[in-house]
Amino acid sequence: MPELRKDPITGTWVIISEERKKRPKYYEIVVNKDISIPENCPFCPGNEGMTPPETHALRSGHSPANGPGWELRAVPNKFPALRVEGTLRKSGEGLYDKISGIGAHEVIIETPEHRKTWFDNDAAMIRNTLLAAKSRIIDLKKDTRFKYIMVFKNFGPTAGATLSHSHSQLIALPVVPLRVQEEIEGARAHFERKERCIFCDIIQYENEAERRLLAENEHVIVLAPYAPRFSFELAAYPKRHESAFENISDPELDGLSAILAETLGQVGRLLSRPDFNLIIHNAPCQNSVADFYHWHIEFMPVLARVAGFEWGTGFYINPISPEESVQSLKDARPR
Amino acid sequence: MPELRKDPITGTWVIISEERKKRPKYYEIVVNKDISIPENCPFCPGNEGMTPPETHALRSGHSPANGPGWELRAVPNKFPALRVEGTLRKSGEGLYDKISGIGAHEVIIETPEHRKTWFDNDAAMIRNTLLAAKSRIIDLKKDTRFKYIMVFKNFGPTAGATLSHSHSQLIALPVVPLRVQEEIEGARAHFERKERCIFCDIIQYENEAERRLLAENEHVIVLAPYAPRFSFELAAYPKRHESAFENISDPELDGLSAILAETLGQVGRLLSRPDFNLIIHNAPCQNSVADFYHWHIEFMPVLARVAGFEWGTGFYINPISPEESVQSLKDARPR
Repeated sequence: MPELRKDPITGTWVIISEERKKRPKYYEIVVNKDISIPENCPFCPGNEGMTPPETHALRSGHSPANGPGWELRAVPNKFPALRVEGTLRKSGEGLYDKISGIGAHEVIIETPEHRKTWFDNDAAMIRNTLLAAKSRIIDLKKDTRFKYIMVFKNFGPTAGATLSHSHSQLIALPVVPLRVQEEIEGARAHFERKERCIFCDIIQYENEAERRLLAENEHVIVLAPYAPRFSFELAAYPKRHESAFENISDPELDGLSAILAETLGQVGRLLSRPDFNLIIHNAPCQNSVADFYHWHIEFMPVLARVAGFEWGTGFYINPISPEESVQSLKDARPR
Repeated sequence: MPELRKDPITGTWVIISEERKKRPKYYEIVVNKDISIPENCPFCPGNEGMTPPETHALRSGHSPANGPGWELRAVPNKFPALRVEGTLRKSGEGLYDKISGIGAHEVIIETPEHRKTWFDNDAAMIRNTLLAAKSRIIDLKKDTRFKYIMVFKNFGPTAGATLSHSHSQLIALPVVPLRVQEEIEGARAHFERKERCIFCDIIQYENEAERRLLAENEHVIVLAPYAPRFSFELAAYPKRHESAFENISDPELDGLSAILAETLGQVGRLLSRPDFNLIIHNAPCQNSVADFYHWHIEFMPVLARVAGFEWGTGFYINPISPEESVQSLKDARPR
């Protein structure tokens, strides 16, 4: 019997329907076979001139900025969705509202090695990326025009990555996006009723229930959400209540990087290194201290092409229950 | 300069960023080359036994049910996301809420001809489909367990279609999906302030402004929305205020079918018959008479693969403004 499950924070309903698994090709694994290095990868060492000047870098020794010798670079996106220059101007057009496209759009180039990915069990690369994100958020938050800073990673062409060299992105926005606002409102409503953070409640409940618990260490817990929109959707939560990602401590960074490297390893073995999206859900810039909000990471492999109408409706059909996906991932642990 | 535009109904912000067009491959046209007919297409005449028995059919002459001789068939989905049988049971699990997966999931097989599509300028085929949707909605609404009936069409594999034979789908749900609820609440808020339907206001404003108006006839208007999430996103509105799609009149059906056939023709010529999603936005079953809600059709070609993180954030980046997309589509009219 299929089940409709409700996400306790956003209120989204999801159909968990095992029946749909019987369809021919109920999901599609896109094997990323193309491991050739393109001739002029703008993210490879030696090609630093192909990107705008770096905003942040991790360099060994005394290598000068914008040349080789780095472990990681953050640079403005060459084709930015938003521009840093200009004043924030709000205006109307008939019925409608618009804002000038002020913001920042940066790329974190996570490694000098073109072929290295998050599936390669390299916790140090993941740690460098998260630390760079923290550093860029702290810097960009000084600009009070920005209301929200979104950090995300698209891996592989079906997840939206146009370049194969491993990278993450950061977009600073002059507005708080709708889904973020909804998540915050959902968490606030729970707090108003119970005086408890809903994410802390989820962490405690899932730790006891165990069925959807994939991994944990001293600082971080990795779960399959109760009402996942996508097969093998996962979430990582810090155990310490904290609304702002940029307040992550060094030991927490270690714990998060280690558990992400381990989790991605399992996903990669089970699902042949799928394309994926990873998003840091963070508090808005100007309300970053909150009892009711708890930063976290969302991970979604791109498996199904059945998602067409979900954009328009907010309604999701998922053929694999989170309990089943966690069990399969556990079975994919190296022995 | 990029622009952030706000959808006046849902409140979603969209970045219209021409800069992003400069990227290599800023969108991808997947040319649907595979026009071979698979050996055992369950939707082709002669294979009626491969589907569950029909719930509705358009038959010429006196051909018996579940055999050949039809123009259109509606049948239950063989791999339904929800089941008709059973009682609606709501229950909890710790923090969470769930409902038994009661509902209906049907397929409308739109034509006996395997190769025919909505791009083929066949208004009669589109009319048959819309009429079948109307008829199935009226029938399914008698079951009071259903709160919302969703009609949608996925065309092509990247839009989520698993079978190439032209078809639409209908899902009757025991809950109102979140995005539908938000759209309704947005429309209600406008009505409470102004005592006017926001969709009627949009139709009037866009008709005068013209920049985003693609086509109109006596009954229907086709627009590019002010804040489109996707390139070449379009919407069709009936000119007469009406909240329930199933109350469409015969002349309105004629007008809608003709304008959709014409619009799809332009899209097909300009964008090489792209994969697409089409959704009927309708009022909920139990609140289908409303001054503030106005049924409409949403059309989204699947062009970009840049949409990865949009699911999680509700934030969209669109490299093509609606004004530009309408102009390009107008230029693609046959002379």
